[in-house]
Amino acid sequence: MNSKRFRQQMEFLLEVDKAKSIFRQTYISDSSRKENDAEHSWHLAVMAFILSEYAESGTDIARVMKMTLMHDVVEIYAGDTYCYDDKGNADKAERELAAADKIYALLPDDQREEYKALWLEFEEGKTPEAKFANMLDRLQPTMLNYATEGISWKEHGIGREDVLKRNESLINGPIEFSQYLTDLIIKAIDNGYFSRRM
Amino acid sequence: MNSKRFRQQMEFLLEVDKAKSIFRQTYISDSSRKENDAEHSWHLAVMAFILSEYAESGTDIARVMKMTLMHDVVEIYAGDTYCYDDKGNADKAERELAAADKIYALLPDDQREEYKALWLEFEEGKTPEAKFANMLDRLQPTMLNYATEGISWKEHGIGREDVLKRNESLINGPIEFSQYLTDLIIKAIDNGYFSRRM
Repeated sequence: MNSKRFRQQMEFLLEVDKAKSIFRQTYISDSSRKENDAEHSWHLAVMAFILSEYAESGTDIARVMKMTLMHDVVEIYAGDTYCYDDKGNADKAERELAAADKIYALLPDDQREEYKALWLEFEEGKTPEAKFANMLDRLQPTMLNYATEGISWKEHGIGREDVLKRNESLINGPIEFSQYLTDLIIKAIDNGYFSRRM
Repeated sequence: MNSKRFRQQMEFLLEVDKAKSIFRQTYISDSSRKENDAEHSWHLAVMAFILSEYAESGTDIARVMKMTLMHDVVEIYAGDTYCYDDKGNADKAERELAAADKIYALLPDDQREEYKALWLEFEEGKTPEAKFANMLDRLQPTMLNYATEGISWKEHGIGREDVLKRNESLINGPIEFSQYLTDLIIKAIDNGYFSRRM
């Protein structure tokens, strides 16, 4: 029979499978359905290494990948809070902290501490790794919202100002991210992808 | 306007979104539906670091994570080939090589070479990183097949011998993986999770 340690790890790995059933507000690129947390996290981790050259010098990309892969597993218990939902965001931190305690408790003690700390680091967004992971977490849904002709923006009454404000970290980030966002917003205006509610 | 390099990278990142619509034969843990390539790859990358202590000493886990995150994007053009499908597996290598040429061609030259080589390394399964990534690619569906009471095994007429043969690398891998598989097969027999076709 396997060691207690290995059994705890496998129990955690089975529990996080539930991230595949937590749906976000962003649609996948063919507009057929909304994206779930596991797919979103996969996409961010791929972006982490494909776009690694734009991270601040000295950023540990492996750490960024771990952060992006794990940043949403708290939503298994806390649910997805839409980024433009002011009411849901009021108690988001509290709900997610309780969820983090619960999910990471499945792991052996050392890993519980390590991954809870990594998640908190992501949430605080201060280290180079957390800053880059957070930028990717803005860039990916923006890319998909544009690719899907703004379905999600229109569904939620999101205008250009909301998108600009939400993506401030991209504007203040590497020049490529800032240019990408600016070009995208201009094209989205031209194409009528934003909500008309102003 | 963004540099050609950045535009190529973003085009690749949008194209790989299609992995979210390539479905495998394994069901997610609540048995509600089959799993797609993006979710599967996410799960393997999480396993890569949670189970990193069982990899051969000196294994570069960041490299294993990249391999697992990218190993199935060729299926966007080549489709998923079920592991027990002998006919589909006959020309799988050829179809996937053509698909790799096509998808990695979207990237700038240096990254095209790097990620195609990484995929070939995974396929060959000889380096410590490729061996570990391939073991995880066996462990994850086995875990899910057991958790879903063998739905997929039953659907495809898969018996215990097939599962043992398919997972030989786990039997010959770290003791924890080998014990896990052995225990799982015994419990699956007791619970009647395998197909009765022998």
